[in-house]
Amino acid sequence: MKFRRSERLIDMTNYLLEHPRELVPLTFFAERYGSAKSSISEDLGIIKETFEQRGIGILQTVPGAAGGVKFHVQAADEEAKGLIEELCGIMESPERLLPGGYLYMNDILGNPSIVKKVGRIIASAYSSPAIDVVMTVATKGIPIAYAVASYLNVPVVIVRRDPKVTEGSTVSINYVSGSSKRIQTMVLSKRSLPEGSRVLIVDDFMKAGGTVTGMVNLLEEFKATVAGIAVLVESENAEERLIDEYLSLVRLSDVDVKDKRITVSEGNFFTRKES
Amino acid sequence: MKFRRSERLIDMTNYLLEHPRELVPLTFFAERYGSAKSSISEDLGIIKETFEQRGIGILQTVPGAAGGVKFHVQAADEEAKGLIEELCGIMESPERLLPGGYLYMNDILGNPSIVKKVGRIIASAYSSPAIDVVMTVATKGIPIAYAVASYLNVPVVIVRRDPKVTEGSTVSINYVSGSSKRIQTMVLSKRSLPEGSRVLIVDDFMKAGGTVTGMVNLLEEFKATVAGIAVLVESENAEERLIDEYLSLVRLSDVDVKDKRITVSEGNFFTRKES
Repeated sequence: MKFRRSERLIDMTNYLLEHPRELVPLTFFAERYGSAKSSISEDLGIIKETFEQRGIGILQTVPGAAGGVKFHVQAADEEAKGLIEELCGIMESPERLLPGGYLYMNDILGNPSIVKKVGRIIASAYSSPAIDVVMTVATKGIPIAYAVASYLNVPVVIVRRDPKVTEGSTVSINYVSGSSKRIQTMVLSKRSLPEGSRVLIVDDFMKAGGTVTGMVNLLEEFKATVAGIAVLVESENAEERLIDEYLSLVRLSDVDVKDKRITVSEGNFFTRKES
Repeated sequence: MKFRRSERLIDMTNYLLEHPRELVPLTFFAERYGSAKSSISEDLGIIKETFEQRGIGILQTVPGAAGGVKFHVQAADEEAKGLIEELCGIMESPERLLPGGYLYMNDILGNPSIVKKVGRIIASAYSSPAIDVVMTVATKGIPIAYAVASYLNVPVVIVRRDPKVTEGSTVSINYVSGSSKRIQTMVLSKRSLPEGSRVLIVDDFMKAGGTVTGMVNLLEEFKATVAGIAVLVESENAEERLIDEYLSLVRLSDVDVKDKRITVSEGNFFTRKES
């Protein structure tokens, strides 16, 4: 069965989008469509150009006998700007205010379309460093972690507050929550993280950074290294930040409970992602 | 700026995949590419055919002035069969056995590529009924719930075992766990689920069905209705199943702790999805 170029382009686009960061040999496509490698090469040239022009991502060509193409998600700066502005707008809504100055964010984190966009932006910032695993802590960070991991094509490991029988044996550490100064525990299943893993830590919210510091300490127990830290929202009025190197999309600068005003602005995404 | 057909096909494919179940007017694409509506129509015809032939999904054409196209994910039976076989193979590995006959499944649930495929298969089975929300219970059901919801383009709500301050006011119910017969509590944020919502309940594992029954009862408190129940794994040797109408991909029939043998087979997916 032969395929026309238009059909190949559609199917290849879908295939590449579904298999980010995976090396696909040209022969794979040539066999899939019963086409010559030269035609596949031309197809990939068109896809590469369109992906770059439309800000979908980058198609990396790996030359040689063991070569092929690899799709990397790469959001344009305007896309990131647009999403961050949208998030700021949504977060400023005074109905989010909960007693104690907390913010209700379930609707944002429960929206798969927003979560996917957040994942795309964060994954774009970590497209070149080698990342083996995305790590987060239960519960609210989970959707973002999966969104990032699915664009980076790496597994997710989830740290828990309490061990469960289905985790198998676990490693547990105590840490001091940065804002409340309480001692808390976090556990991670022993077999979930191979030694030497390069880990991207992802979370929904960071105040003083106690939880993230806990995760960093936990990684030491696993002889794993931190390849990056990214959060959706950072809170500005943390007296003392325990973590320096992180990426944030949105910064929460003030919550005025009396006047019901929430002040948010762009996080450090654009200033930090290049460094 | 004008676009060639090949570029339009690539970008439209990406756009449609990113916006499932969203009605996209032809004028949207016509303006996006500076093309005549007749060319866009032809493009969509090619995409529709390729999507169907390659088992990517269905492109529904909505006629009339307020019309357009809508992409529905629709996995072919062979894709579902392939995934279920793959899952059975992975699950039978004796290293999964934990003390007490529990199974370690973090590696499966932590693999975004598997989770996405599971989401595609479950979403395909619920592509026609109207679903407003996907619901699950923390923690292990969350990734599957998001994968399903992202293909159905609906929000996710997460039931918790314990209320947290960031949930705002919650509705709480007590339920009896089907297997351990213990009384447990589940809570759901009050504002997370509008009255009258049609809810697809998703979970990773179902034994007697106590947790799912709890979620069904919780839905009554919200005057919401159950549009479906889907689980990744059902355990066969539950003495008494509390839930009848559900879809499962994999059935766990026996765990032999002594001989370290795990017996799994295809769930009821193919027999149930048509009903």
